Amino acid sequence: MADTGWPGCAKSLKGVILDLCGVLYDSGEGDGVAISGSVEAVKRLKASDLQLRFCTNETQATREKFVAKLRRLGFDISESEVFPPAPAAIAVLKERGLRPHLLVHDGLRPEFDGVDKTNPNCVIIGDAAEHFSYQNLNEAFRVLIGLEKPVLFSLGQGRYYKETDGLKLDVGVYMKALEYACDLKAEVIGKPSRTFFQSVLNDMGLEPHEVLMIGDDLVNDVGGAQCCGMKGVQVRTGKYRPSDERHPAVTADGTADDVAQAVDLILSQRGH
Amino acid sequence: MADTGWPGCAKSLKGVILDLCGVLYDSGEGDGVAISGSVEAVKRLKASDLQLRFCTNETQATREKFVAKLRRLGFDISESEVFPPAPAAIAVLKERGLRPHLLVHDGLRPEFDGVDKTNPNCVIIGDAAEHFSYQNLNEAFRVLIGLEKPVLFSLGQGRYYKETDGLKLDVGVYMKALEYACDLKAEVIGKPSRTFFQSVLNDMGLEPHEVLMIGDDLVNDVGGAQCCGMKGVQVRTGKYRPSDERHPAVTADGTADDVAQAVDLILSQRGH
Repeated sequence: MADTGWPGCAKSLKGVILDLCGVLYDSGEGDGVAISGSVEAVKRLKASDLQLRFCTNETQATREKFVAKLRRLGFDISESEVFPPAPAAIAVLKERGLRPHLLVHDGLRPEFDGVDKTNPNCVIIGDAAEHFSYQNLNEAFRVLIGLEKPVLFSLGQGRYYKETDGLKLDVGVYMKALEYACDLKAEVIGKPSRTFFQSVLNDMGLEPHEVLMIGDDLVNDVGGAQCCGMKGVQVRTGKYRPSDERHPAVTADGTADDVAQAVDLILSQRGH
Repeated sequence: MADTGWPGCAKSLKGVILDLCGVLYDSGEGDGVAISGSVEAVKRLKASDLQLRFCTNETQATREKFVAKLRRLGFDISESEVFPPAPAAIAVLKERGLRPHLLVHDGLRPEFDGVDKTNPNCVIIGDAAEHFSYQNLNEAFRVLIGLEKPVLFSLGQGRYYKETDGLKLDVGVYMKALEYACDLKAEVIGKPSRTFFQSVLNDMGLEPHEVLMIGDDLVNDVGGAQCCGMKGVQVRTGKYRPSDERHPAVTADGTADDVAQAVDLILSQRGH
């Protein structure tokens, strides 16, 4: 059952940010599968007077390929509406004159085609999945331990996510591994970074209190959004676990069985 | 240069514990290579009136095969003198009625031959090296996340060690990864665990203040021994790094360029 309290804020909303994996679809073999009712939910939000953006920690593909996949799954989504960590990371590299060693999924590499990677002075890790071999992690470690001031960027800090065949370790796990190996603290680019959420709000031209984030990750989606002053709602799909509803540090402003129910509740409150 | 202060305690010593990898030999292709002067240093200690034991976090081979390797490298060492984590772990499993899922090096598996591993209710990780694939780490994660009370044992908690071709990530890095993934705290079996050091002292029949530990790992060898009331000396071989001598939390009771020099200093103080 959805909490009864949370749709109350729906009337004053001007925008919604949706997480993608675990909310609109479950990843897995091929393109993965759309979560029941989610294609229709996106359609209904787009037809409403709410602004809509998609904020994701997806780093297994370039934004172009990722959006193409979403479209194949039936979603009416365009590249300019989707905010993944890699483009944000590239902006940071330019700003600080850094040349990365990449430990990322092969599918993400083309995103960094125009970036100078010679003689690296930082390491970027993304959700490399099978590419998180001992050898590749060791290589990233050796780059870091060889730097006078080691800098590690992590594209997200998730613990795990759900694919169609079960839970999979996410980038945050390997971030912690390298943090310990090199005795350093990584800089997270992506959710729950405040800078990252703020860039989406800037694009919408809205204030935090006017926006609601819907995600399956209690800490990174819901907690991250709340830290920025947004409302955060958790859906019981994707990596959701019942224990999330008794989490010691983060309490969602609301929960819903899935994104279809969440959108229903929002729009019915607004008289749609 | 060795510190001038530390050999002062040598006169009152009754025993010495030596770390193995990075102190007596560097691991690598084949058996690795003995560190210059180390075979002779062991011989001299054995010929002295000091008791001698070897305390290691080595988990890539059974104790039997590991000691055979040391003997091929020229060391006069027998199995009963060597204390690795795996036999200690097996004792803990029996005591607590636990059945492990193993994420360990193939070379260590035979050590667990007599252990019930059906329907596992805990995970043991050792220095699995190349076996720390994404798939294997994910498998260990799924066992843990599926348990009502997940128990993770880590055979050591080292960050990295030195092989002949460079630094390699150690088991502690993957312990941190699984700790974060499952939001738990691992139980460390091996150095710097107090219980582990105490089992060596018990075998020697000595009090902590009568024993000196010599290792290349400032935190796990030196700091661990000091926490038990022993003296701890660091050698500048193996994983030693100059920054160890400015470590914020651990200060060795002495340093020496290598084990040969350390043994020289101890024995000359004792009038040998």
